[in-house]
Amino acid sequence: MVEHIVVIGCGAAGATAALQARKFNRKVEISIFNSELYSQYSRCGLPYTISGKVEDFDDLVLMKPDNWGALKINAKLGTTVKKIEHSKRTLSYEGEAGEGTIQYDALVFATGAENADPPIKGLDKERIYGLRTLNDAKALAAEADKAKKALVVGGGLVGMEAAEAFHERGLDVTVVEFLPHILLAMVDPDMAEIVEEHCRVHGIKILTNTAAQEVLGKEHPTGVVVKNRVTNEEQTIDTDFVVVATGVRPVTDLAETIGVKIGSSRGIATDERMMTSIDDVYACGDCAEHLDFVAKTPCPGGLGTIAVRQGRVAGINAAGGDEKFAGIVGAKVTKLFGLEIASTGLTEDMAKRYDVPIIKGSIKGSTKPPYYQGGKELKVKTFFNKETGKLVGGQLVGLEDAAMRLNVLTIGIQNDVDASELFDFENCYAPAICDTWDPLVEAASAAKRRLRKK
Amino acid sequence: MVEHIVVIGCGAAGATAALQARKFNRKVEISIFNSELYSQYSRCGLPYTISGKVEDFDDLVLMKPDNWGALKINAKLGTTVKKIEHSKRTLSYEGEAGEGTIQYDALVFATGAENADPPIKGLDKERIYGLRTLNDAKALAAEADKAKKALVVGGGLVGMEAAEAFHERGLDVTVVEFLPHILLAMVDPDMAEIVEEHCRVHGIKILTNTAAQEVLGKEHPTGVVVKNRVTNEEQTIDTDFVVVATGVRPVTDLAETIGVKIGSSRGIATDERMMTSIDDVYACGDCAEHLDFVAKTPCPGGLGTIAVRQGRVAGINAAGGDEKFAGIVGAKVTKLFGLEIASTGLTEDMAKRYDVPIIKGSIKGSTKPPYYQGGKELKVKTFFNKETGKLVGGQLVGLEDAAMRLNVLTIGIQNDVDASELFDFENCYAPAICDTWDPLVEAASAAKRRLRKK
Repeated sequence: MVEHIVVIGCGAAGATAALQARKFNRKVEISIFNSELYSQYSRCGLPYTISGKVEDFDDLVLMKPDNWGALKINAKLGTTVKKIEHSKRTLSYEGEAGEGTIQYDALVFATGAENADPPIKGLDKERIYGLRTLNDAKALAAEADKAKKALVVGGGLVGMEAAEAFHERGLDVTVVEFLPHILLAMVDPDMAEIVEEHCRVHGIKILTNTAAQEVLGKEHPTGVVVKNRVTNEEQTIDTDFVVVATGVRPVTDLAETIGVKIGSSRGIATDERMMTSIDDVYACGDCAEHLDFVAKTPCPGGLGTIAVRQGRVAGINAAGGDEKFAGIVGAKVTKLFGLEIASTGLTEDMAKRYDVPIIKGSIKGSTKPPYYQGGKELKVKTFFNKETGKLVGGQLVGLEDAAMRLNVLTIGIQNDVDASELFDFENCYAPAICDTWDPLVEAASAAKRRLRKK
Repeated sequence: MVEHIVVIGCGAAGATAALQARKFNRKVEISIFNSELYSQYSRCGLPYTISGKVEDFDDLVLMKPDNWGALKINAKLGTTVKKIEHSKRTLSYEGEAGEGTIQYDALVFATGAENADPPIKGLDKERIYGLRTLNDAKALAAEADKAKKALVVGGGLVGMEAAEAFHERGLDVTVVEFLPHILLAMVDPDMAEIVEEHCRVHGIKILTNTAAQEVLGKEHPTGVVVKNRVTNEEQTIDTDFVVVATGVRPVTDLAETIGVKIGSSRGIATDERMMTSIDDVYACGDCAEHLDFVAKTPCPGGLGTIAVRQGRVAGINAAGGDEKFAGIVGAKVTKLFGLEIASTGLTEDMAKRYDVPIIKGSIKGSTKPPYYQGGKELKVKTFFNKETGKLVGGQLVGLEDAAMRLNVLTIGIQNDVDASELFDFENCYAPAICDTWDPLVEAASAAKRRLRKK
């Protein structure tokens, strides 16, 4: 019998684990620790506090500190777990909730991820920020009030969303991306190009294939020296502050002290019950790794959707249940200056890396019938396993209904839909909504023809 | 070897059949007959020619008459097939394309449906219209230019879309619906109520449970006598013209002359290859009936999506191919004054009629996370087979992203997804798009709990 569950970390994964453990088991004692003073807040919402699309920082806090008590969950905020002695099943902590040692039966690691700072000189100045915590967002919102120029290092999701936010606040924004295109963890180069062009038209400067070398200035930045990796040309971009958004790494140091296995993607290895290599010890969210649904390769989740789904499974299982996590498809989406960018499953690059042979079905369609006013161009790519015909990935870019269409591909991947089955998809149709053959069906049709020919 | 395919009817089903037959078989001779002078146009687009969301009537014509020649398809527009002698495989025709008799090897019926006029007195006047043909739409657009008051009999999809269009043109619009609610062929009463309220707030008068009795006036309508079927109260609604949109019936008279089997829903019975009871004779679109995907009960398609999918299968098979139609899920959608109304698979009423025991998962959610500005309320209903747990239907009503979410349910139904699998659906998430647990997942969660308890 589990009598006490301890959850370490109170982000999306940890908070969900604690809540779901309580929902499943009314009697078990539950404690949750967070080194931050806030409890669960939406990390993905942070860029929108800068632009004002999220009105108040407090709106992002999804679990008010008082609510934990009502659920009989001991929330120890601003408090860090210092040491775990798993042989005795005790841990000691220190912080705002005081100092102490407690006993546990089941342990859930939800320690998240932290910014992985790139090798750039001069990152130790003031006015250089990440965008991972509520405090980061507050500092950046203050910058938006006073600064004129922003430089963002890293054109991934967080970097681009931050760039959009500063631009909307009237700043002159430059994004420096090391790779040949922005968003390459999410979309293929041809899709990324569409997004780059769209963002440039809306006024963002984007330097691709470019390495940030050094932040100039004494106490705070005056500019950043960047180098084009193809031409080797160097230039200095003036800026008032710098946002570093070059990716994260799982926080696993505490888990490592008790000997849980770390996987090949550097996250805590988990099984389908979200249990680590040690019995009664679970991990979930950004600190964990799990199998990719399609390639069956270990990978980090790195998404809010994955964090809450894994947190739910870990929490229920820690409380004595038997739930399974379905695997990571990795559906990703964002909206930049009205353009929806959506991706699920494997990208072309991932398919190559994971050795999955693919056939593509790509089309340029429209969100509405040609005769109806106001349809928007929609670019769709779908990928099918060359051998099995099964859907393994897809991407959409368009000014409306790209993200919601992605959902059809994701549930298709999760349920082993092949090209013929996606072609048979009976999309809904009305002139004000979409055409009789949805662009997704057209893409499947293109792939079907190629699969037949192979 | 098929040498000559004749398609009768050039709506969505017939035109698609001819085009797909040509795509599949470059050599076969193809003739297509249409009693109307137009070739394929979007019937669903007709209401939008009234409001101007479709700018020009010609925009609706998807196949310009000249294009048929380029595809080596003999299009005989404005020409009616008078007689078929199937034992000799000949048919005779008459009309704009002259008179003649031709030989065929394969025949495709795509004769569509026609308005089924209700038993109302005085329907023989001028200024009383259906809304099924391009000529109907032209006449109604002319009414919108001169009339002040419109009365629509029938609150189904066509009736409500027409009502919206006239209202947008500044007319005073009343909808008279015989049943307790509008749109009952599509959604459950609780969903219909939301739509009624929304349309009333936007200025449409809707009388439910009300029978139109008689159209008053000499040459043209001055008013319509209606009777409330609950209170038996009669009243006269003033109007300048009347639109009758009380449903359609399949046009099967020509097919009946050669003895094809008519099914229980009154359409031409078809197998999974869209072949009728007679070899080499196919039927598709509104004149045909086929199995409902979920209940395996014969039903009419009655939708553009079904017409083109059946037309494709019939055309390819007539040309010597071997394609199968996947069955009718019946995904329906419309948008009225910005509100999206979407339905797929069985409604509660259909489940009762077809004897499918269901468990519901219903929720009221939001299209976006609570902290992000501008999310809209979304009402979701999902239905699962009580015995198998499989998804059998669903409905959504909301001011955005209802229709696109419906697509997830439809592909789920088509691929035998159950409540647990829909719950495991990894929806995409971003603050500007939707929350970590999509309302669809929440609905599946509610159903899952109930399925467990039963």
